[in-house]
Amino acid sequence: MVDCDRRTATMMTLFGTLLASGTAPLEASYTSAEPNGYMDKVPAAWKGNEQIGIVLYDHVTALDVIGPHYFLGRLAGATIHFVADSIRPIPSENGLVLTPTATFETCPKNLDVLLIGGGTAGTLAAMRDPAMLAFLRDRGARAKWVTSVCTGSLVLGRAGLLNGYRATSHWIGRPLLKEFGAVEVDERVVFDRNRATGAGVSAGLDLALALIQRLRPTEFAQMVQLFAEYAPAPSLDSGTPDHAPPAVLARAQDMLTGFVAGVREVAATANDRRPG
Amino acid sequence: MVDCDRRTATMMTLFGTLLASGTAPLEASYTSAEPNGYMDKVPAAWKGNEQIGIVLYDHVTALDVIGPHYFLGRLAGATIHFVADSIRPIPSENGLVLTPTATFETCPKNLDVLLIGGGTAGTLAAMRDPAMLAFLRDRGARAKWVTSVCTGSLVLGRAGLLNGYRATSHWIGRPLLKEFGAVEVDERVVFDRNRATGAGVSAGLDLALALIQRLRPTEFAQMVQLFAEYAPAPSLDSGTPDHAPPAVLARAQDMLTGFVAGVREVAATANDRRPG
Repeated sequence: MVDCDRRTATMMTLFGTLLASGTAPLEASYTSAEPNGYMDKVPAAWKGNEQIGIVLYDHVTALDVIGPHYFLGRLAGATIHFVADSIRPIPSENGLVLTPTATFETCPKNLDVLLIGGGTAGTLAAMRDPAMLAFLRDRGARAKWVTSVCTGSLVLGRAGLLNGYRATSHWIGRPLLKEFGAVEVDERVVFDRNRATGAGVSAGLDLALALIQRLRPTEFAQMVQLFAEYAPAPSLDSGTPDHAPPAVLARAQDMLTGFVAGVREVAATANDRRPG
Repeated sequence: MVDCDRRTATMMTLFGTLLASGTAPLEASYTSAEPNGYMDKVPAAWKGNEQIGIVLYDHVTALDVIGPHYFLGRLAGATIHFVADSIRPIPSENGLVLTPTATFETCPKNLDVLLIGGGTAGTLAAMRDPAMLAFLRDRGARAKWVTSVCTGSLVLGRAGLLNGYRATSHWIGRPLLKEFGAVEVDERVVFDRNRATGAGVSAGLDLALALIQRLRPTEFAQMVQLFAEYAPAPSLDSGTPDHAPPAVLARAQDMLTGFVAGVREVAATANDRRPG
């Protein structure tokens, strides 16, 4: 989920200044860095060579993709690509900028994992972006795993990649999955054949852990979970619609009415002109 | 936790090219974005004006700071600053670059929340960086909340900010807290007066949720938890040393021996020349 305000504008101005100067000591900061790090000690049998594409777009919810990135980024031997329409910096939310490392054109043609996160207005824009949909259809047709977090599944759906698949989404998005031919499942992580979808935002951690169990031996996944100290203990119990107080749920739903209407509008358009 | 490899170098080269070109359509991407977003519907009574400083440094573990950022970034009316020694892009891990919005000099003098994340070799470097320690001591002396995630508490400790405080850290770091005068507590989130420390990596989500409960009405925190769909359900149960299989724990500990030795070395130096 996304919100965007004047702080983002301020940050973008600062960043624009930096871009214009072109003098940031990037290579220096890299070469001064630590050696290859603790994952070098991973046994050879636990190493792989996956090509992983994490899709970025303006106002994607950062945690949707950075949660999974923690786990996927520890797949020793794998290569992570942050993919967007260009390598321009991508504004996510509240002043946080994410940096693509590949474009729709330069991203490897055959991916082991394709992952897209969600958001609100930014996600609606992604669902309307022909270049995004073309990229997802192309790589999704061959990727070993086609995955999403939060309302990212609605973008996969719009691209036709969840037609006939069981899937989940952020709780606000789950009832909308059927608009794109998917079968709504009210679970936190849903695997159906090579599609893996996660519920809202924080579900990306659960999705990624479950995915690395499928890519590597269980002991490897356990080790990464231990590194992440992933034994969550939220201090409140309002993480799902059936646990949140009714007034809190009603307010959250009210805030998202525009998003829901937007998805229905996109779906109506999509139905008019599939496969888009 | 951090690891750093050739992919980071590739990414930094790409990014350097972009910086040199100075032509990214940043303002265009901002102005074409969604309107102010769903948090605009937050009632006035739930709005604040906090100044929040999230500290970045080379090879910080991204999820340590992006997890809390999800929650803190939804405090309507608050301003988030990503603070580093300069506004050069900061390499975190596995190709992910984070972008500061303020420097140690330009960051507001009085912060409501100061937050620092952890890592491994990058964190050791931060613990040895006089400018970092000076920044933390200055802002930490006046911040309403001085907070950390993962091994970030060791940096706070090195800066003298946890002396006599109960605190936690990543499980590998908890026994090291006493080197800096802190009292180790084996809990996921520890509050002691205005210090709030979290355990490893993923504990940043729990820390931030608990913190926003203290900054806003409970209903607000519940609403943000619902937006995040933060009802975690990991598919494995190896997130803590006492739950991970012994062989997995032994391997993880082995990978981190260099980090532990480095912290002890920093602590010995710190003891020689406090307050540094």
